[in-house]
Amino acid sequence: MAVYTDVSPEELEAFLATYDIGRLRAFKGIAEGVENSNFLLQTEAGSFILTLYEKRVNPADLPFFIGLMEHLATRGIDCPQPVKNRAGEALGTLAGRPCAIATFLVGTSVRRPSVAHCAALGGALASLHKAGADFHAFHRPNALSVAGWRPLYDTAGERADTVAPGLRTLIGEELSHLEAHWPADLPAGVIHADLFPDNVFFIDDRLSGLIDFYFACNDLLAYDVSICLNAWCFEPDGAYNQTKGRALLAGYQAARPLGADEIAALPTLCRGSALRFLLTRLVDWLNVPPGALVRPHDPLEYLRKLRFHRTVESVGDYGIVETARA
Amino acid sequence: MAVYTDVSPEELEAFLATYDIGRLRAFKGIAEGVENSNFLLQTEAGSFILTLYEKRVNPADLPFFIGLMEHLATRGIDCPQPVKNRAGEALGTLAGRPCAIATFLVGTSVRRPSVAHCAALGGALASLHKAGADFHAFHRPNALSVAGWRPLYDTAGERADTVAPGLRTLIGEELSHLEAHWPADLPAGVIHADLFPDNVFFIDDRLSGLIDFYFACNDLLAYDVSICLNAWCFEPDGAYNQTKGRALLAGYQAARPLGADEIAALPTLCRGSALRFLLTRLVDWLNVPPGALVRPHDPLEYLRKLRFHRTVESVGDYGIVETARA
Repeated sequence: MAVYTDVSPEELEAFLATYDIGRLRAFKGIAEGVENSNFLLQTEAGSFILTLYEKRVNPADLPFFIGLMEHLATRGIDCPQPVKNRAGEALGTLAGRPCAIATFLVGTSVRRPSVAHCAALGGALASLHKAGADFHAFHRPNALSVAGWRPLYDTAGERADTVAPGLRTLIGEELSHLEAHWPADLPAGVIHADLFPDNVFFIDDRLSGLIDFYFACNDLLAYDVSICLNAWCFEPDGAYNQTKGRALLAGYQAARPLGADEIAALPTLCRGSALRFLLTRLVDWLNVPPGALVRPHDPLEYLRKLRFHRTVESVGDYGIVETARA
Repeated sequence: MAVYTDVSPEELEAFLATYDIGRLRAFKGIAEGVENSNFLLQTEAGSFILTLYEKRVNPADLPFFIGLMEHLATRGIDCPQPVKNRAGEALGTLAGRPCAIATFLVGTSVRRPSVAHCAALGGALASLHKAGADFHAFHRPNALSVAGWRPLYDTAGERADTVAPGLRTLIGEELSHLEAHWPADLPAGVIHADLFPDNVFFIDDRLSGLIDFYFACNDLLAYDVSICLNAWCFEPDGAYNQTKGRALLAGYQAARPLGADEIAALPTLCRGSALRFLLTRLVDWLNVPPGALVRPHDPLEYLRKLRFHRTVESVGDYGIVETARA
């Protein structure tokens, strides 16, 4: 949530001269996206977002992200569409960083999703999964799925108990359980992997678009559903809202019915995605420099979610409607 | 240069419902303005800037700032124009902060002003001074003129030498000199007091507007000229560019000729404005929290400028064209 790299108007004007989007009318650094520097551009052709990819993004992954956004846009998904320069390239270099210009998506995110928002999100997620099904130009394994968690645990483990007593043991046990029980044969494809409310725009309660595809990867589709259940269906007091869960799952299934195997795996997948965000937040929390202005997300929010999933006795607890495929 | 206060889309929508600028289409926190939180709004009626006034702004000063922008806009100055809500009020409250919505000004600032930019800036500054001449609704003394410098010196003095050897003595001597020689009877009025290049927008080298009136106050008009000479006419290597100075002063005088008394005082005023920014930057520099992401401006840039002004032998060194009024 910041602008990490400084761009002068002069170098931006020179850069824009290689595009066909007219002269620059205004540009502002914007507080959007956690990993990269983002600028809102207004040119004679309209509004655009310029993203400079910072250190945490691997340049080798950029063709996947750019190619995926182009692919999804041609399949009717409302997402930022990379703009190509006159040489036909969507990836450029500015201020020493890889960068791309994308179309500006109208809409605002919601802080407290309603049941209707959750239903719309479920539908958009299923559409995303279907639209990504024939994206084969690039492949990007999910570095933050089950195989990626133990290295994070090893990084954070020793100091985990400084954040919450007993946290190290709890994570260790959970990790061993998930490594042993992680589902292997579920339908896979392109997932967003970070579809939190701040990455989803609405206009008047109508979902207008999805942004920030920089965690997108190839993984289990139902794992993406579990990430959204965690991100959208818990209340500020920590309680799971079954009505929202039901709406999200029904919205999803209206466009892409879940298989019986996916439904059966839901509690495990939810535990996994809760652990994934608990671990990455824990590492960020333990590594925040003293005096930093940006406070990382609270890892304990995801500890509470994980504890809920460990108490789930049947998938009905998530509000799943029993109309799944056999 | 930050967003200090978090605003949820929900509370913003509720706030906008008291205005006649249509429904919210998009909003982004933007990295503009050092003291306040700024957001770019896109509504059905167009683009706007929402400013939340943070701790360093005295709420008692807000009617001056808002009233001044309204006054200047009616006098043809291109500056943000406060937007009133349906109750006719331009000042509101959002997220616990005083706030205002203003029109969006098209244009981009320049990092390296050209001679033409300096000429245009000089003309705009004179127009601002003339347009402000009949703004009497509110009065705001300049807290950062000569009487305000000694308290800053007392704050920073003891640690000044940690930034540059001998700095404490140099500032002390300069301060005593300026307190004894500060001009008292020059033409006064409303000044911008912070018209750095990042507060001036251009479109294709045409000056399109002035922003950030949150240091504006009543003070000597020629002091504002000296602030601009310091901010616009030095090169990155520290050298004063007389061609730029000549252009700025000629641009100013074409709209408002300087009096002989103002011209004679220019070296003293330039020393004063150099000391003012040296002192405020020094205080900020010495008080930056360890690990902070935002690095304050370099105070030594203004030490170099101050040293130049101390060597000035005649006002001709600034490039002043000798066509002044008697």
